[in-house]
Amino acid sequence: MDFSLSDEHQMILDSADKIATKFNREYMLEHSKEKTFPQEMWDEMGDQGFLGISCPSEYGGAGMGVTALSLLQERLAEHGVAPLYFVVNQGIAIPVIGKHGTEEQKERWLPDMAIGTSRCCFAITEPNAGTNTFKMKSLAKADGDDFILNGSKLFISAVNHVNKMLVVARTESYSDHDTRKKGLTLFVIDVDTPGLTYDQMDTKLAGTAGQFFVYFNNVRIPKENVLGEVGKGLNVLFDSLNPERIIVASGAVGSGRYVIKRAVEYANERIIFDRPISAYQGLQHPLAEAKALLETASLMTRKAAWAQDAGENAGEFANIAKFTAAEANFKAADAAMQVHGGYGFTESMDMLDHFIGARLGKIAPINREMNLNFIGEHILGMPKSY
Amino acid sequence: MDFSLSDEHQMILDSADKIATKFNREYMLEHSKEKTFPQEMWDEMGDQGFLGISCPSEYGGAGMGVTALSLLQERLAEHGVAPLYFVVNQGIAIPVIGKHGTEEQKERWLPDMAIGTSRCCFAITEPNAGTNTFKMKSLAKADGDDFILNGSKLFISAVNHVNKMLVVARTESYSDHDTRKKGLTLFVIDVDTPGLTYDQMDTKLAGTAGQFFVYFNNVRIPKENVLGEVGKGLNVLFDSLNPERIIVASGAVGSGRYVIKRAVEYANERIIFDRPISAYQGLQHPLAEAKALLETASLMTRKAAWAQDAGENAGEFANIAKFTAAEANFKAADAAMQVHGGYGFTESMDMLDHFIGARLGKIAPINREMNLNFIGEHILGMPKSY
Amino acid sequence: MDFSLSDEHQMILDSADKIATKFNREYMLEHSKEKTFPQEMWDEMGDQGFLGISCPSEYGGAGMGVTALSLLQERLAEHGVAPLYFVVNQGIAIPVIGKHGTEEQKERWLPDMAIGTSRCCFAITEPNAGTNTFKMKSLAKADGDDFILNGSKLFISAVNHVNKMLVVARTESYSDHDTRKKGLTLFVIDVDTPGLTYDQMDTKLAGTAGQFFVYFNNVRIPKENVLGEVGKGLNVLFDSLNPERIIVASGAVGSGRYVIKRAVEYANERIIFDRPISAYQGLQHPLAEAKALLETASLMTRKAAWAQDAGENAGEFANIAKFTAAEANFKAADAAMQVHGGYGFTESMDMLDHFIGARLGKIAPINREMNLNFIGEHILGMPKSY
Amino acid sequence: MDFSLSDEHQMILDSADKIATKFNREYMLEHSKEKTFPQEMWDEMGDQGFLGISCPSEYGGAGMGVTALSLLQERLAEHGVAPLYFVVNQGIAIPVIGKHGTEEQKERWLPDMAIGTSRCCFAITEPNAGTNTFKMKSLAKADGDDFILNGSKLFISAVNHVNKMLVVARTESYSDHDTRKKGLTLFVIDVDTPGLTYDQMDTKLAGTAGQFFVYFNNVRIPKENVLGEVGKGLNVLFDSLNPERIIVASGAVGSGRYVIKRAVEYANERIIFDRPISAYQGLQHPLAEAKALLETASLMTRKAAWAQDAGENAGEFANIAKFTAAEANFKAADAAMQVHGGYGFTESMDMLDHFIGARLGKIAPINREMNLNFIGEHILGMPKSY
Repeated sequence: MDFSLSDEHQMILDSADKIATKFNREYMLEHSKEKTFPQEMWDEMGDQGFLGISCPSEYGGAGMGVTALSLLQERLAEHGVAPLYFVVNQGIAIPVIGKHGTEEQKERWLPDMAIGTSRCCFAITEPNAGTNTFKMKSLAKADGDDFILNGSKLFISAVNHVNKMLVVARTESYSDHDTRKKGLTLFVIDVDTPGLTYDQMDTKLAGTAGQFFVYFNNVRIPKENVLGEVGKGLNVLFDSLNPERIIVASGAVGSGRYVIKRAVEYANERIIFDRPISAYQGLQHPLAEAKALLETASLMTRKAAWAQDAGENAGEFANIAKFTAAEANFKAADAAMQVHGGYGFTESMDMLDHFIGARLGKIAPINREMNLNFIGEHILGMPKSY
Repeated sequence: MDFSLSDEHQMILDSADKIATKFNREYMLEHSKEKTFPQEMWDEMGDQGFLGISCPSEYGGAGMGVTALSLLQERLAEHGVAPLYFVVNQGIAIPVIGKHGTEEQKERWLPDMAIGTSRCCFAITEPNAGTNTFKMKSLAKADGDDFILNGSKLFISAVNHVNKMLVVARTESYSDHDTRKKGLTLFVIDVDTPGLTYDQMDTKLAGTAGQFFVYFNNVRIPKENVLGEVGKGLNVLFDSLNPERIIVASGAVGSGRYVIKRAVEYANERIIFDRPISAYQGLQHPLAEAKALLETASLMTRKAAWAQDAGENAGEFANIAKFTAAEANFKAADAAMQVHGGYGFTESMDMLDHFIGARLGKIAPINREMNLNFIGEHILGMPKSY
Repeated sequence: MDFSLSDEHQMILDSADKIATKFNREYMLEHSKEKTFPQEMWDEMGDQGFLGISCPSEYGGAGMGVTALSLLQERLAEHGVAPLYFVVNQGIAIPVIGKHGTEEQKERWLPDMAIGTSRCCFAITEPNAGTNTFKMKSLAKADGDDFILNGSKLFISAVNHVNKMLVVARTESYSDHDTRKKGLTLFVIDVDTPGLTYDQMDTKLAGTAGQFFVYFNNVRIPKENVLGEVGKGLNVLFDSLNPERIIVASGAVGSGRYVIKRAVEYANERIIFDRPISAYQGLQHPLAEAKALLETASLMTRKAAWAQDAGENAGEFANIAKFTAAEANFKAADAAMQVHGGYGFTESMDMLDHFIGARLGKIAPINREMNLNFIGEHILGMPKSY
Repeated sequence: MDFSLSDEHQMILDSADKIATKFNREYMLEHSKEKTFPQEMWDEMGDQGFLGISCPSEYGGAGMGVTALSLLQERLAEHGVAPLYFVVNQGIAIPVIGKHGTEEQKERWLPDMAIGTSRCCFAITEPNAGTNTFKMKSLAKADGDDFILNGSKLFISAVNHVNKMLVVARTESYSDHDTRKKGLTLFVIDVDTPGLTYDQMDTKLAGTAGQFFVYFNNVRIPKENVLGEVGKGLNVLFDSLNPERIIVASGAVGSGRYVIKRAVEYANERIIFDRPISAYQGLQHPLAEAKALLETASLMTRKAAWAQDAGENAGEFANIAKFTAAEANFKAADAAMQVHGGYGFTESMDMLDHFIGARLGKIAPINREMNLNFIGEHILGMPKSY
């Protein structure tokens, strides 16, 4: 066992600190307000080589793994500036294309993604499917050399800030099969493909990226845009689950540290009776407890990333990491809210959005119940409960 | 012991049901969006005699007590339409004027308040005083037959929707006294008095009433607007604390029931695997637990109101009621959020605002730590911890 | 609504105070150590008329209801001396005989029970049935004018301290029926009936009453000992559920108050740094929170008793009361343990047994999951989850 | 970062598995019942070289660090057989003698300790000092070449199973100093030194080792038995704190895994309605949550051990590890108790003792409040709260 960071990993953290100094929380808030793309920060990250961090080096990337990405996200979140795009674009799209794409696809898509001029969102969730991916209804029917896609998605982040979309759809309808697990196919499509439209949802979430409804109305997709094999999208998807959970966990850990730091600063300065309010155990202990839980969750996140990078099954670690990081971040945000009193509910204090974001972490990208089901079944060996 | 409601109290609940059918959650949301005053609902409540519910009958009111007001608030909240104005106007301003006002003052102020053409807000909180009221700095200096008031307040609700303001200020500065408890005086002033200005705060809270900064710049107040005795405002204030906590607790109980009802409806309809998601104990049990806690908190709220109306010291009950109702309401809202998944974060689902409002209940009008301090010291006999 | 106690109810509390002064915690501990019957206390309670409190007056009792019994239990528990026998004997056996017994049975059994010379235990639980009563296997087959009972029970309290046993058994075997709810019959039998044997279980619970395995080996029961109708025992059982939950809830509330009182006394006296440890919010707040929850649970317990005595369906209230009282008592005991540090684990401090007893309250006489299931299904209208 | 175990560390785990197969839970229970020393297991551990695991190799040990010791304890606890002696003897006594002892002392004491024929307990706690070590009253006065020690200790584990005692006493009385931190001295004494007597306390804790009162009545200690410098015992003590917390955390992690394993086995087999009770989320999720928290706490424990072995300040990690491991173990034990229902309270089920032991972890060897204070002050930079 060795808990120290390699020089390379330490450098990532140091660079993240620098980037966050230049493009700080205030910068993000400006872009968050109108949901505009943080182009200057993105460019800076591209200049530092971070956008291709998870891209194989033969296509212009750094060829680093989930650990590197995860450390970057954790540290940016610690400054309150972690970009959501990283989770899907660097965390999912680039790696799955790198692994499942044909040589032609990799050459076509990756180099632009590695420098950030191309970005990809991820369209999977459907209204009546929720966590049950198999029930999705979006259907891509073969039509000559193309597929014709019809259906709709929702809660798709950042559609208006990207040019590519990784779409999951059925290529055989749900009822055609005795096993529900077949018939899912992945496509990489251009967001401006005719027939693809989208509407911003009225989610009340901070961040520069909005959430969208996406509609597919006879969207024609050439077969060379199929990622992996037709009908075997599940394998590709499974490769994306753990990295997503790990990077989201990293963001949660970083966010938790950020709000605790803010709460401590505030509480150390605020004197109502004769001492800083941070001297009262009623406020100090919840912050301390959240800190303890965050730091333990951070270690599990790193272990999950380490296992993933080592090519091992990271499922156990990734699920525990996501679960504990989200719970700890929420405890941190809740404790921070309590410390701020009424001020916590003002926009200028910029605390409520962290609280809401932390609450979101309990349901996305996987809800806590499914996390616990995974642990109960796959780690502890109890029967399926749902 | 008798837990049944009197006919009179039952009638209040029935009327509240009717009002809420006419002026339902959607009506409130419209007014909440732009923070406009819900005049039609207010008029209807006036027509039903509810606006003077806590006003002595000789001044045009119904002469009922906190129990009546509390039941009304609880039931309106159960429909998602409880007006914040009730807490301060009917719950604090009218009763304290009724008790501490001179005959002249009561005749001057109460009749209009009882029919709703006059409304009063309550200005007490200051930036550096927080829960420590004695540290307030707003100072009203005697000047002939008047007082000249300077200072500022914040988190004052609904200033732009009322014409009167109940102000607490020091008439002797903090340092002039060996005991900090003297020197507070209450005034009732017109909101349009010269020198009084206000700015809306950027609180991110739902509801038709906004929160405001209020600035007093040489505001001249005639001595006949002093409520109670000069320098003895504390006695008046103390009379307002328990009713405020009781009515807020009632609102929390009602809100909790509302979100649980919403969550149950949603969860009973949503089928992701093969059963409604409400059939999973992971979702059902938290709702059931919140329900249990809400109903017990409701009983304590009623006991507190009963004690208050009986002229007994309701402090113990009011503090426990406020504490348990706020905690239970938050648990309810949190469980409801979880049930709604991503949809809970959309504006159209109208659930996140309840969650935020429930979170607010843990810090206002008294925070949970001060509630616990009260219980620890005054009920259990432990030493002051702050 | 009226939260005041009647003179009669107040008198019960006052008498309980007196009894507990004479037969105090130390008295109970002596009998608890060797599981001997607290005869002197029982006699005193008989002299005060408390043993027949729930027995109709025509059979020598006071004819009072669950409220009276519940107040008595609550107050005795507040002194740490609540007898378990009350729950089953006064809370279940006497009332169900009073309601479902024939005239002959009532004359035969009740007068002795009302003065305490006869006592009854309650034998229902079986190893593989748990909370699913219908799965019980004990079978009583008709044989002329008798039934022959075979089977076994466990977790039966106080068998060696009573002379009667209320037994639930199937008179038709489980598979004989299309609906599982039929075929249960209740019997009142003498503990010394041939074929009935028992063994003390190795439960590690404080209290004067032990828990037992009970074995029925061709136990012959005359038909006149059937309580209610053959095969319709369920109706009788249902009448016992709510009173049992209410009285257990009362005991939990009282116990919670007792441990909090003990913890406050201890913490107020113990000075480790420069203040009593009760001045630290880390210890004070959990005690205060437990107190708040206990007092709200107490109100629900009283409401349940009130509804039960009024002949209304008390199920909703009784389940919430049992759930909240057990949770609050455990929180109280846990907070009290924390305050006592290492001393809490010594026998001489007499605190650990309260903690274990409070833990037991989360699983008996109904576990918290079944409580929540009841609330979820029967109060909130969600589907059965098990 | 590297989360894999070295071959050496893996071997320790494998050996622990073997030892625990031979000296299993049943073996421990036999010795626990009468508090007899588990000599055969001890000998086996000696044969395997584990007793000298933390002893420098020049004195007959393996010269391994806290990581090795911690892994051993974690794994033994996973089998329900972790010996308490390890915490103090291998975790504290041997390492501090190894670090602070003179050459003569090391040669005199360590070789016997390394093979297990000599064992040492640790006497520090006093009645009125609690977590405030500085307030201790035991006083050792210089007298020629000796010190004369008077005073008393309590909660001293295993006194009757050891031959040596590491004692902390003041060599200058509390009031003699302006700074309270001076005047503490450590001694290593023989348990059979004249004037040293002890009495077993009535702690109700499982395990083979009892807790004792220890009395010093003019106990004469030669100066060559002073460990470290006179009056500077604090430095030595500080070296023991983190290892103790780490090893205790390891034990808690292992115990938590053990009770979860037991609960899963039980719940998978118990069918009350139509499924194993482990299929209900009400029971499954708490076990899964405890598992998640345990595994994250385990990582922090390993990080703390790693830092300690690397000679870095492990305080931050050790405190978080102890806190989170104790909390997680208690959650695990509580969830396991709930799963076992009434059976959990029987001696034959052997579950209640784990629950009580887990509860103990929240107050010993440092209580959760002091853990949180450490985190609040020393990690987060908030003021002292006590």
